[in-house]
Amino acid sequence: MKLVLLSGGSGKRLWPLSNDTRSKQFLKVLQGKNGEKQSMVQRVWGQLKAVGLADSAVIATSKMQRDMIYRQLGTEVPLIIEPERRDTFPAIALATSYLYTKNLTKEETVVVLPVDPYVEDSFFQRVKELERVLEHSNAELALIGVKPTYPSSKYGYIVPKEKVNGTEYFSVHYFTEKPSEEKAEALIAMNAFWNCGVFAFKLKYMVHLLEKKGIPLYFNELVNQYHTLPKISFDYEVVEKANHIVVLPYDGYWKDLGTWNTLTEEMATRQIGKGVLADDTVNTHLVNELDIPVTVIGTKDLVVAASPDGILVADKASSPKIKDLINGFNQPPMYEERIWGWSRVLDYAKYEDGQEMVTKRICIHQGKNSSYHYHHLRDEVWTIVRGEGELALDESIAHVKAGDIIHLPAGRKHGIRAITELEFIEVQTGSGISDEDFERLYFDWDDVIRHIQKSNPNLYCKKKREV
Amino acid sequence: MKLVLLSGGSGKRLWPLSNDTRSKQFLKVLQGKNGEKQSMVQRVWGQLKAVGLADSAVIATSKMQRDMIYRQLGTEVPLIIEPERRDTFPAIALATSYLYTKNLTKEETVVVLPVDPYVEDSFFQRVKELERVLEHSNAELALIGVKPTYPSSKYGYIVPKEKVNGTEYFSVHYFTEKPSEEKAEALIAMNAFWNCGVFAFKLKYMVHLLEKKGIPLYFNELVNQYHTLPKISFDYEVVEKANHIVVLPYDGYWKDLGTWNTLTEEMATRQIGKGVLADDTVNTHLVNELDIPVTVIGTKDLVVAASPDGILVADKASSPKIKDLINGFNQPPMYEERIWGWSRVLDYAKYEDGQEMVTKRICIHQGKNSSYHYHHLRDEVWTIVRGEGELALDESIAHVKAGDIIHLPAGRKHGIRAITELEFIEVQTGSGISDEDFERLYFDWDDVIRHIQKSNPNLYCKKKREV
Repeated sequence: MKLVLLSGGSGKRLWPLSNDTRSKQFLKVLQGKNGEKQSMVQRVWGQLKAVGLADSAVIATSKMQRDMIYRQLGTEVPLIIEPERRDTFPAIALATSYLYTKNLTKEETVVVLPVDPYVEDSFFQRVKELERVLEHSNAELALIGVKPTYPSSKYGYIVPKEKVNGTEYFSVHYFTEKPSEEKAEALIAMNAFWNCGVFAFKLKYMVHLLEKKGIPLYFNELVNQYHTLPKISFDYEVVEKANHIVVLPYDGYWKDLGTWNTLTEEMATRQIGKGVLADDTVNTHLVNELDIPVTVIGTKDLVVAASPDGILVADKASSPKIKDLINGFNQPPMYEERIWGWSRVLDYAKYEDGQEMVTKRICIHQGKNSSYHYHHLRDEVWTIVRGEGELALDESIAHVKAGDIIHLPAGRKHGIRAITELEFIEVQTGSGISDEDFERLYFDWDDVIRHIQKSNPNLYCKKKREV
Repeated sequence: MKLVLLSGGSGKRLWPLSNDTRSKQFLKVLQGKNGEKQSMVQRVWGQLKAVGLADSAVIATSKMQRDMIYRQLGTEVPLIIEPERRDTFPAIALATSYLYTKNLTKEETVVVLPVDPYVEDSFFQRVKELERVLEHSNAELALIGVKPTYPSSKYGYIVPKEKVNGTEYFSVHYFTEKPSEEKAEALIAMNAFWNCGVFAFKLKYMVHLLEKKGIPLYFNELVNQYHTLPKISFDYEVVEKANHIVVLPYDGYWKDLGTWNTLTEEMATRQIGKGVLADDTVNTHLVNELDIPVTVIGTKDLVVAASPDGILVADKASSPKIKDLINGFNQPPMYEERIWGWSRVLDYAKYEDGQEMVTKRICIHQGKNSSYHYHHLRDEVWTIVRGEGELALDESIAHVKAGDIIHLPAGRKHGIRAITELEFIEVQTGSGISDEDFERLYFDWDDVIRHIQKSNPNLYCKKKREV
């Protein structure tokens, strides 16, 4: 049995804390073990470990989320990197080709599920049982159906036929999306379930389906053609067209923490970050990632969320509207967690003459390094404010430490490795400053050293300050 | 007739927009002429000009507000700088000694008033009439009494005796502070007025009073002894002890814009600064001085105010509580407007080893200069990101421009003058970073040049880039 966890989402509904590199599943707001806060991804990964499924899991995601997943779950987690964001059908097709290329037997059961359901541990016991259900029923697809607790008009419903004799599962009659509350009540009376996006199938089922559609089965080939796949969901392209689907009920806690009003209900504390929630606030949550203190007074049913990307002040019930309101914003992420550390935009400006300025604070964790790269359009000045490191500057290596200033005009190749936790302030100036203006030469530090040793066979090991 | 405008206040009630250098009277949120926003001080100064009183006015304030007043009203405005903040009695005593030392005749009428009443122009016509009222009544003090529009429990009341025959003014019977609403209704039935803090007296009255108390009459002497004066209000120390006080009614608009709920009622627009007030917000005001966008959704009767010092989210009626809540905060101002430009703290950190980092963005206006100074405890790195200037560095002068980097280790004397509008990013590192660690040598740029010419008679005029 193989698990494919889909880690998608731009997380616009949880603006300003979520952005393109940090979707909602990475926000550390839930109560973890030992009093530490944890993210949805970390909670689910812990649950998978608890039921012995983590070793069978692979995460399908985009390049932008890679660093975040490695930071939160460790670098051992196997990833399937989508070349671009399309939809769940292309993502599951890619996962299929990945497993096929890895020589998984065609009889293997594959379970696809979202990376962030907020559920009890028993949910994953149910997921484990899908293999047996699929065997027993001989169905094309086996799903998990959540027993509804109220007639929600926000979810999709799975309407079952009769229960299969002597088993726990049902044959699926039909699906229906976001019914009215009245309709939902009627569906619940018919024993309908919420669709929580869990799909199990035999690998051969999807392999045949891809063959039929002329989609390449070999991973590298599909990666190259990924941009040609239709942007369509797995539900529409596969589930709704299948002939034999069964559903296994799950009668426990399940919640989609996709909006501020649902997320705050599960938050570890009413306040995260700097500030004061006055005693007279009622049902008010504050999540503040800024260094600027937030003071909240006399409010009711409010969520206040602040990050370098923006500040949200919203009535909880109205908070889902954020998705539409921020569609106009097209700001790059201000705070990014990366495999080597983090970076935060402190300020930026564009002057009348077209010149731009971006100031960042950058932290490289001990033993980690930035890539060795250069820029075409911007000069950079680094002022090291903490720690010490090894700087690769064109074809030389130098030891640097707090207090040192490094001048990096456009075109100058540079990379830095932290000997101790290292921080510097980066001032970028130029016109046309963007993340695109970035020519990466090497990422592995050994490669950087080898490159420099080619021009300067004796230079390395002369670890004195030269900057 | 001389007007003394008292410009005091730490402005805690309008946190986070007001701070020690920018009290509430300097916030540009009111509707000015030509669609420009103006501050309370600018509005009052314009009204004084309109009635011909500006030329007779002097502003009593602290050193911290000096730059702000010059920026908002121009550098021609005469100031009386209090050596430290005490209370209104010491402030008015100092103003008295200032006027006495300037050889004002003792028969001159002095009117003391707050720098920021929100009133109609006719209020200042009334102020003008106080001179005549003082002459005619032969009273020690003549006040303005505002005709109450509702039984407020927040104001002080002036209870009059009968009207003086054939005049517009009343003799004052007694004062009462912040009565209950019932009591306030009874006071209004007795024709009581709101006390708006306007006091007129003959200079000789205060001169005698200071003499009696043994307080020096000469300005420089009083400045030196200022710290010995009692911290007490003019109301308690003088007004309540006076025998003959009259009050001149003002029957027009008067408002104390000292809290967010009263201020927002007079704001030029519902939103100032970056962000979105969604259509479903009701009676909600947003003032955002950050570059970070603020999105407000589904709120009612709310004020959201954001500045580098903090972010306030408050129910309007509850907003006055902010004063108590922020008493615990003791953060230096993050944004400061200065006579030479402005500076903004972008980030700061204190590391485990006691080392600190402060990053600022600093703008020097064309033709202005910073002082020539040095620090004992911190190194600074300036990266010029915009414009060009003249840098004084120890005993040399150099031309600098965008792209240049200036290294300023502790002890190095430096100052900069902007040839065009100049901006730089300043990274401070060291331990014990504070505004106190600042040794000013010269402020006037001619003095800086003269100082450097002493050691380098030929150096100046060699305007080439040397940094």
